[in-house]
Amino acid sequence: MINFQTSPDKYQHWKLTFDGPVANLSMDVQEDATLAEGYKLKLNSYDLGVDIELADAIQRIRFEHPEVKVVVLTSLKPRIFCAGANIYMLGSSSHAFKVNFCKFTNETRCSIEDDSTHSGRRYIAALNGTASGGGYELAIACDEIYLVDDGNSAVSLPEVPLLGVLPGTGGLTRLVDKRKIRRDRADVFSTLAEGLKGKRAKEWGLVDDYFPTSKFQESINSRVQEVAANSNDNVGSGIKLNALDPEVKPSGIEYKYVNLIINREQRYADLTMRAPEAGLPTSREEIQQLGDSYWPLQAFRELDHALLHLRVNEAEIGLVCLRTEGDIENVLAVDKTLTANQDDWLIREITLNMARVMRRLDLTAKSFFAFAEPGSCFAGSLLELLLASDRSYMLNNPDEAVELALSELNAGPLPMSNGLTRLQSRFVATPEKVDQVIAHEGRFDTEAAEEAGLITFAPDDLDWEDEIRVSIEERTSLSPDALTGMEASLRFAGPETMDTKIYGRLTAWQNWIFQRPNAVGEKGALTNYGKPTQAQFDFKRT
Amino acid sequence: MINFQTSPDKYQHWKLTFDGPVANLSMDVQEDATLAEGYKLKLNSYDLGVDIELADAIQRIRFEHPEVKVVVLTSLKPRIFCAGANIYMLGSSSHAFKVNFCKFTNETRCSIEDDSTHSGRRYIAALNGTASGGGYELAIACDEIYLVDDGNSAVSLPEVPLLGVLPGTGGLTRLVDKRKIRRDRADVFSTLAEGLKGKRAKEWGLVDDYFPTSKFQESINSRVQEVAANSNDNVGSGIKLNALDPEVKPSGIEYKYVNLIINREQRYADLTMRAPEAGLPTSREEIQQLGDSYWPLQAFRELDHALLHLRVNEAEIGLVCLRTEGDIENVLAVDKTLTANQDDWLIREITLNMARVMRRLDLTAKSFFAFAEPGSCFAGSLLELLLASDRSYMLNNPDEAVELALSELNAGPLPMSNGLTRLQSRFVATPEKVDQVIAHEGRFDTEAAEEAGLITFAPDDLDWEDEIRVSIEERTSLSPDALTGMEASLRFAGPETMDTKIYGRLTAWQNWIFQRPNAVGEKGALTNYGKPTQAQFDFKRT
Repeated sequence: MINFQTSPDKYQHWKLTFDGPVANLSMDVQEDATLAEGYKLKLNSYDLGVDIELADAIQRIRFEHPEVKVVVLTSLKPRIFCAGANIYMLGSSSHAFKVNFCKFTNETRCSIEDDSTHSGRRYIAALNGTASGGGYELAIACDEIYLVDDGNSAVSLPEVPLLGVLPGTGGLTRLVDKRKIRRDRADVFSTLAEGLKGKRAKEWGLVDDYFPTSKFQESINSRVQEVAANSNDNVGSGIKLNALDPEVKPSGIEYKYVNLIINREQRYADLTMRAPEAGLPTSREEIQQLGDSYWPLQAFRELDHALLHLRVNEAEIGLVCLRTEGDIENVLAVDKTLTANQDDWLIREITLNMARVMRRLDLTAKSFFAFAEPGSCFAGSLLELLLASDRSYMLNNPDEAVELALSELNAGPLPMSNGLTRLQSRFVATPEKVDQVIAHEGRFDTEAAEEAGLITFAPDDLDWEDEIRVSIEERTSLSPDALTGMEASLRFAGPETMDTKIYGRLTAWQNWIFQRPNAVGEKGALTNYGKPTQAQFDFKRT
Repeated sequence: MINFQTSPDKYQHWKLTFDGPVANLSMDVQEDATLAEGYKLKLNSYDLGVDIELADAIQRIRFEHPEVKVVVLTSLKPRIFCAGANIYMLGSSSHAFKVNFCKFTNETRCSIEDDSTHSGRRYIAALNGTASGGGYELAIACDEIYLVDDGNSAVSLPEVPLLGVLPGTGGLTRLVDKRKIRRDRADVFSTLAEGLKGKRAKEWGLVDDYFPTSKFQESINSRVQEVAANSNDNVGSGIKLNALDPEVKPSGIEYKYVNLIINREQRYADLTMRAPEAGLPTSREEIQQLGDSYWPLQAFRELDHALLHLRVNEAEIGLVCLRTEGDIENVLAVDKTLTANQDDWLIREITLNMARVMRRLDLTAKSFFAFAEPGSCFAGSLLELLLASDRSYMLNNPDEAVELALSELNAGPLPMSNGLTRLQSRFVATPEKVDQVIAHEGRFDTEAAEEAGLITFAPDDLDWEDEIRVSIEERTSLSPDALTGMEASLRFAGPETMDTKIYGRLTAWQNWIFQRPNAVGEKGALTNYGKPTQAQFDFKRT
């Protein structure tokens, strides 16, 4: 079972140090500290374990060190920044693991850009050596890239020429959509195993500048000071992100606010989120004191953990049934506090984290059904669970009222990867309905919810159990691959962004290639990497 | 060898009749008239041969019958409109063929929408029986969908529940992006093998209306008359699209304006387009008289044919080297005529066809390199070949001038699938350069072209031959799959449209699924369709 929790005192591959407004995040991968057998993490190459630490570090900078204005990513190894995902790890992994590994590393890189865009932290990739493949993809997720000019170090994406796969962790998309490299130059660069060094790399826009070895550190420092000096808002001190301490049982995981039950034989999970208690504090000071036990932070950290666990450790679970439990008023009260304090750094970080977790859910290759039953609290932030679901069922029983409610959090702060809110995605045909449901006074009972188009089905109590049972049985009987492709297509109507291009287009092509004999067959390029034999291709173009 | 040329007198599966402003395009698939052995085209199911006729019919309506304002798609078979792509054909086809088949059928459906959007013809799907799978995908490419209410007929997308693959001919994307069906309803519909009948289909937006059997024909007629009456522009009579008559040789195909040479052992092709002759007519009347022998029509029809041939009949050719031959002035003169006469229906159709052919090239899974050499004429419409290429080489030799030139056709009329011109795609980083190169007076010699960013490389005459040779050898040595995924990612920077979502996202997922054992394995759903054995899935979600 892969453990997604870690903390700096346990890092094996990264050093995280702080110097006032500057965080130094330095890669120093321990070759033998791998997540699985059969490969060594040479040359700062990485496996999922390395990336779990990176994701944790970014998360901690945001919550524990709000004073940080600049994050410098560099390497502690001489002449190499990072050689990317470990090829032998990829070569020996199952298709499903490769796909999940890439998704997680993509989310980590998007979380860097999320921090940069929304929290104004500047990420500087200080390439003190070669950045190849995933190494350059990590750099290109940063705001600025500087390369040492030592006559040897280069940036490169050697995946296509050397491995017969794509730079699929956003690399190709960020080349043309983020750095806006001319497409013919991107073509040349992406087929050039050795990559480009300082001068031409700068000319083509692959790096922002390059400095000779003797001046590299000094130039980086000077740029870092420049950026750090430009920002002078005083924020309070951070809060500690303590380890979640869930009870792990054979049948699932019990967290404080999230309960995950695995119905292994029937291949579905029940995931229930509990509302906050009544009377949570409304002032920033009190919330700061509560720290990571404040409901919207703890509950969504737990949800995040449960989603990652489901993805990687519970591959056969194809459907997640989402439920909520508790008092709608308590959820809305928290949403109100969050909305009223968006100028507070901590409240903003808490909200941005909720948004990232919800996007993790949107991008999870499992079906999600929401069931709104008596005692449920699909309101505000928790209503997003229902809106994110592939479909929803709400009991229609006059004797046992079930209600939904909206809050300001449904109107913008928790956007999907495509930039739309989940309400906007739901009502692409009738955008005026978005404002109508937001302006609606009070809660929606089942009939009002159905009328407003907020739910899919509203069975009455006679039909409820049968309908739920049949819907679960039907869903879990379908081809898991077809469902993954279908959901990836139906969940993201409307506009596209760089993120959706990465997860939808680039990832889909990479997953296709990850199955092709030319990559993973006995004589495929990925399989053959590092072996004395040469890759052999079936040259039919598809 | 698959023949992409046909004409109504040869149709086996469609009846095309005309009644003033109305064209009736009726499907009546002959079961035994298949393109390959091993399957029967029951229930108006289709294979590539059926779709080649459909594509031809749409093309002929546009050129031969400009008086047509409404196209009615219906079926001559009772109780069935169309059952979609033939499952047994798909089940017995190679992966590469499936992918190319879907790409062509996608292009045909996009050509319906292109006609509707740009030439104002209205397409009405008169579903006199069930439209399932590709049958509904054909309907959803039309502007209006009417379903008979006979107690039995339905619209459905049974691919996911029955076959373990996607409705990949645009179906999923058009559900949520064109008809803007709510995503949860799209989810339900796409997993419901039996589909939905009239009332609910209308309620959910899947059809525009439904009529009882007794009133179906009358209601369709009345709607058709209504649409036809609304349009009263008088256009001239059409021109005949005669069969292209190329010389097919073992080493390639020689058309009048296009020469295709297959270097089979080295796995690349040389494709050269020739400029028009001097002194082509500039008046509409004379052009009308020239008909399909007018250069921009004939040359781009030939290019289209060569591209389809390369895709389907020359799978191992991974690289196409594009060259042009002739007088730049003659190309520019034609462009000038086309630009000056955009209000003429024929000139507009000729230009729209050029745009479609260029998009076919953008979407072809082969690498394209352009080589600008002495005697070449990469100007205006032919410059698009160079701009569409993955990279370009232009000889830099003061003794033998090579020049590029722009025309109005580079500024808008030939957009890519993403809605951008190829110049805009090239200069996403520096949009001001688009206007600069368009405003540039006169031609670009090699140095000016390099300076302006129009070409990738400008080798001098000492290096030219070696550089070309090495670039070809390198490209054809790479994994063809990785190149396909890379090019699909790098060619389409910037915005996305429904078309690019279909070709980029939906198609990539479908191609992935088309390789999965759950679909095409021995016990996969596609393989097992119609057999007494049941599909068996590996339920791991990926």
